[in-house]
Parts: sequence; C-alpha cells; structure tokens
Amino acid sequence: MRTDHGGDWAGFYNQQGRMPLDFSASISPLGVPEGVQRAVRDAAARSDRYPDPKCRALRAALSEAEGVPIDRILCGNGAADLIYRIAFAARPRTGAVLDPSFSEYAAALSAAGCTEIRRIPLDPAWGVRLDEVFLDALTPDLDLLYLCQPNNPTGISIPMALFRRILERCRENGIRLGLDLCFLDFLEDPNTLDAKAFLDAYPNLVIFRAFTKLYAMAGLRLGYALCGDPAFLRSMDAAGPPWNVSLIAQEAGIAALRERAYVQSLRALIARERPRLREGLEALGLRTVPGEANFLLFQSPVPLDEPLRRRGILIRPCGSLSGPDTWWYRTAVRTETDNQILLRTLQEILREANPRWQTV
Amino acid sequence: MRTDHGGDWAGFYNQQGRMPLDFSASISPLGVPEGVQRAVRDAAARSDRYPDPKCRALRAALSEAEGVPIDRILCGNGAADLIYRIAFAARPRTGAVLDPSFSEYAAALSAAGCTEIRRIPLDPAWGVRLDEVFLDALTPDLDLLYLCQPNNPTGISIPMALFRRILERCRENGIRLGLDLCFLDFLEDPNTLDAKAFLDAYPNLVIFRAFTKLYAMAGLRLGYALCGDPAFLRSMDAAGPPWNVSLIAQEAGIAALRERAYVQSLRALIARERPRLREGLEALGLRTVPGEANFLLFQSPVPLDEPLRRRGILIRPCGSLSGPDTWWYRTAVRTETDNQILLRTLQEILREANPRWQTV
Repeated sequence: MRTDHGGDWAGFYNQQGRMPLDFSASISPLGVPEGVQRAVRDAAARSDRYPDPKCRALRAALSEAEGVPIDRILCGNGAADLIYRIAFAARPRTGAVLDPSFSEYAAALSAAGCTEIRRIPLDPAWGVRLDEVFLDALTPDLDLLYLCQPNNPTGISIPMALFRRILERCRENGIRLGLDLCFLDFLEDPNTLDAKAFLDAYPNLVIFRAFTKLYAMAGLRLGYALCGDPAFLRSMDAAGPPWNVSLIAQEAGIAALRERAYVQSLRALIARERPRLREGLEALGLRTVPGEANFLLFQSPVPLDEPLRRRGILIRPCGSLSGPDTWWYRTAVRTETDNQILLRTLQEILREANPRWQTV
Repeated sequence: MRTDHGGDWAGFYNQQGRMPLDFSASISPLGVPEGVQRAVRDAAARSDRYPDPKCRALRAALSEAEGVPIDRILCGNGAADLIYRIAFAARPRTGAVLDPSFSEYAAALSAAGCTEIRRIPLDPAWGVRLDEVFLDALTPDLDLLYLCQPNNPTGISIPMALFRRILERCRENGIRLGLDLCFLDFLEDPNTLDAKAFLDAYPNLVIFRAFTKLYAMAGLRLGYALCGDPAFLRSMDAAGPPWNVSLIAQEAGIAALRERAYVQSLRALIARERPRLREGLEALGLRTVPGEANFLLFQSPVPLDEPLRRRGILIRPCGSLSGPDTWWYRTAVRTETDNQILLRTLQEILREANPRWQTV
C-alpha cells in the first residue's frame, strides 16, 4: 500500500509462518515495561468507555514530566498522527523535508494537498550543511519544514548553534517547523538538543515526541506534540478524528512516565551496545554512519535484505540511498545477544557472497 | 475544543470526582465481552511491536464474517478515522450531510478543506423526505454525501426503496456516498438495510462499521470501511498516518468477531428495553422519536442536562435542535435497572421544575 517501513513482522509471519528477529524497527529491545503491561491489563475491562477526547490525565502527567503547561500539549495516535495533523492544520502550499529522512513527512505533505515538496539534501557526511546553503533554502514562500533530531535514518543531529539559526530564520520567514524528537532520548545527553525551551519564543515550533521507542509501546500508539501556540494545537486537534488516542494508550502512557529505571537501563544498554555493534559492522567491512540514535545506518557491497530474511532476521533497506553497486540499510541496536546473532549472520552472508571477502 | 460529544465521563469525573451513570454514549451496557478483555490482556506483553499496518489477520477475519473480499476492507482507528479519511481521500469541493446527523461528517468535510457543505433537513417526522426533494439535492456538482442508517440522533432509517434510488442517483451524478452503518445491528432485522450487497455494482459506495457500540469497545478504537473500489480504499489508507489501528485493537477485533452469544444477548436486551424506556419517557410527558437504534431522541419542556449531571447521570443534549422553550436530548438504551434509575430521576427533576407536572 504505502512506502514500506520497518517492523512488518506480520508480513514476514505471513510469508514464513514464524516470527522474525526484528532489527528493522528501532524500538526498545527490553520489551514492554512491566508497569505499562499492568496498566493495559487493568484497563481492559474499562475499555467500553470512550477515551477521554482531551486526554486530561495523560496531559497532566506529561505536563509534570516535561515541565510544559498542559495547554501546550496535544496527544496523538502515535507521533505519526501528529506528523499528519500539523500538515492538515497548516495546509501548506510549499513544504520541505530533509533527504533522506522519515518518509512520512513527505507523505503527510502530499496527503494535505501540498503541491510543492522541496527535498533538502544532507551533506556528504549525512549531516546538515553548516554553510548557508541550508539556511538559504528557508525562503518566505515555504510554509512547513519537517526536521528530525537525530535524523532518521542517519542518526546524525543538527548542532544546536545551527538549529537556533534555523529556528530564527523560520520565525522571520513565517515557516512552521515540525521538529521530530522521537529519537532524542538515545543521545548521550538529550538535554543539549531538547528544543522545548524555545516553545514560548517560537510559536511556529511544533515538537513531536513518542512513547513508541523509549517505552517499547509501538503496538499501543501514543505520541504527543508540544507547541507554544495553543490555538494552533487546537487546529491540529480539529484537523482529524476525535477519540484518536485510545483509553488503553492513555492509561499506558501515564504508567510509562513512572518507568524511570526502565529508561535508565535502556539508555545505558543503547550507549553500551551501539559502539559495539558499529565496530562489529565495520569489522565486517560494512561502512557505518556515526549515528547517535538506537539504530545505525550502514552500507554493504552486496544485498543483505533477502539473505537475512531467509535466516529469520529483518533489517530496514534504505532503497532510495542504494545505487547499482551499493546497498544501504538501517539496523536497530538491540541487546548484546541479538546484536551478536546479527553480526554472525551478516558474516556468513558476506562470505557466501564472496569467499575471498576480507573481514578485519 | 471541538463540538462536544457524549461519553465525556472524564470531564464529569474532573468536575465531580466520581464516575457518572452514562446515557450520553450509545454503547453496549453489557461491558467489554470477556473474550475481548482476554485478548487485550494477552496482547499487553506483545505491544512492543508495531501494529500490522495492513491489519492482515483482522481483515481476514472480517472478510469471513462479512462475506466480503479482503481487498474491499480497510480498518481504522474507530469509524471516526474512516469518516475523516474518506473526505481526505475524496477532497470534495462540495459535500452534503443530513441535518441533524452525527456532527463529525461536517467536521471531516471542513478538515478536508471542503468549501461548501450543504445541510439536507430531515422531514418533520425526523425521516428523510420520501418525495423528490431529497433526490433533487443530489446534483452533479456534489462530490461527497454522508448518510447514517439508522440516523444519529434520530434512530430513523431511510427505507431501502428510497436508499436504492439515492444510491443510483449518486452513481449517475458521480457522488461518493459515505454510509455509516454503525448502529445497523440494533435494528430488528439488520439484514434488510445492510448495503454491502451493493458494493460491487456501486464502487462509489463506502460503508462504515464500528466495533464500538456492538462490542462495547469504544476505548479500544476500531472500525472498518467496505468499498467495492480497492483503489479508493488505498487512497483512504494513504490519506492519513500509518499504524493507525493499534496491535491491541486488531487482536481485540478478532476476538470480538467470535462473541456471537454476546451480540445475541445485547440485541435481545436492546429490543426488549427500547420500547420500555420509550414508554417510560412518554409516560413522563416527554415526546420521543420512534427510533430503532440503541438510543432514543426525546424532547423536554425543561432543561434536563444540568439537573441530571448533579444527580450523577449524563445524557446527550442536542443543542442544535433545541429552541427557547424546548430541549432535545438523546439517551442510550441501557439495562432495565439503569433505565429505571434514569426514569425515576427524570420524574424527580420534572416534578421539581413544576409540581403540577402531569405524568401519565
């Protein structure tokens, strides 16, 4: 139907009748936190009620956790819901996205009838150009710009100094900025790139956050937007169906915000395993991008997707980056055991493709 | 934020610190079926996975239950999601809704940028005019018409003979017809007004169904659309965010379709209690509309909303129908015990308002 994403275990299951080891979706490998599971089980009998359409209790909990007033918070059916609602509310004629970035930004612009979608290419090192080229693209005729910090699928962030100039230029030129911070928590120090301090001064800024990755809640669907302009959040609310956040997701979200030990363990795990996985991939001769999220982008001299699938493993092909002799993939960072399975399987595939393949 | 709907128990709870007896949302009073609760609890630990974006297993189960091919089925985050997606996919310049009807049809048209929304008034007996007036409104410049069978909040259905003429006129004039059958199952014989036999001959027809009311799953969010034009269903899928149906809702939906005894009990309960509640309201001097859904629309000489709230009961005010000396409300049909509480409380309020009030 649409551009394929990672995490399609169901497609794999339909094909092979077994569950894959899934590196294609970048979610916590620690499973659903026990407190969140309990909240879901407890809510089952009460889910005959409509969800609170205003998510009052969840927004109150988020307000406390984020230190942001409750009227600056809008919850959604996953961050994807809010990525579409900003486009439906802003009705942009001209939108811009980074290339490469998460494909749903451009899909949301198209769905909202945006007639001109500009793609701003990343620099050769997968970052945003530090020169004026990027800022020059932020012209007054641009209505909506999507950015992702750290970017998906590169894992590279825009440095704060440049981000501030982007934000300033957007405000000057009347450009609304949709900033996806869904992977922010995996940075060594998330606070350095958190943009919520700018909400008051930049009412054109809308931040997206998700419970999906940090709390392993992809199947429950919960995200939220932060914006200093409550009237625009109300437009986003009106731009799509009511009751979009299920009662189960609201109660699970409140429970998740209490899971501080889980988040600490997860962040420590990713910080420890990401460099190991990266070294392992490099040792196999696979060029990696020095990303800082819970995934890694890497390049292979042979196709890996199908051989891995046959061995029960999913990774995310990045088809738009691949050329005739080079294949790009994104892999999640998972537990040490899982990552070792991936590395061993990749070694097997690379040797099979070329017995003289030199691994370090 | 938006037009208020029934079912806002959370607003009541915030105000009064207790849960209401809720007649404002028209959902099954029998609670979440045990099999559905079990499915939710069982899925809790697996909800770290993304939902299947194509809802393959759920659509297969629906295909069998409805006798409709799987590529004619699209699932949504409640029927409301699909009510918006049809508008986003069709991008109508001119839309039409019945007046009164469910307010989200017009809201969806507005959200999709529809510039002209025509309101077709019901006849004085709350039905659709049987004369040519209704058919004459279906002009070639109309892009999208929403109908609800039986209509909400009246509970009155369009007879099949007229419906076929409407369907025919829509096809002739290139009008897409969004037909909401969310309350169909509460009719004495739902088959007589089920429109799915027309899907093949009328690719302009899109039927909406929900799990919300029949299986008491309002908090889980699950609905589906049926359409004979798979390409249009793909447009609806692309018109909003992916992963819109949670993993929990998909598994709950599959479990719900097995709950045949629950559905039988519920339909028997509504068939038994609706006329009793209607008689009870009439005996209090409250004029009712002879609806056939799991709710009743009625008229009061005094405001009832606030006095009922103070006594812990919610009903649904129909503000747009009310005049200076008349107040209209929609009430759910619930269990005998609940309905008796409502009737006794209404009697108390009516007597308080006018001690000489004559009840039958």
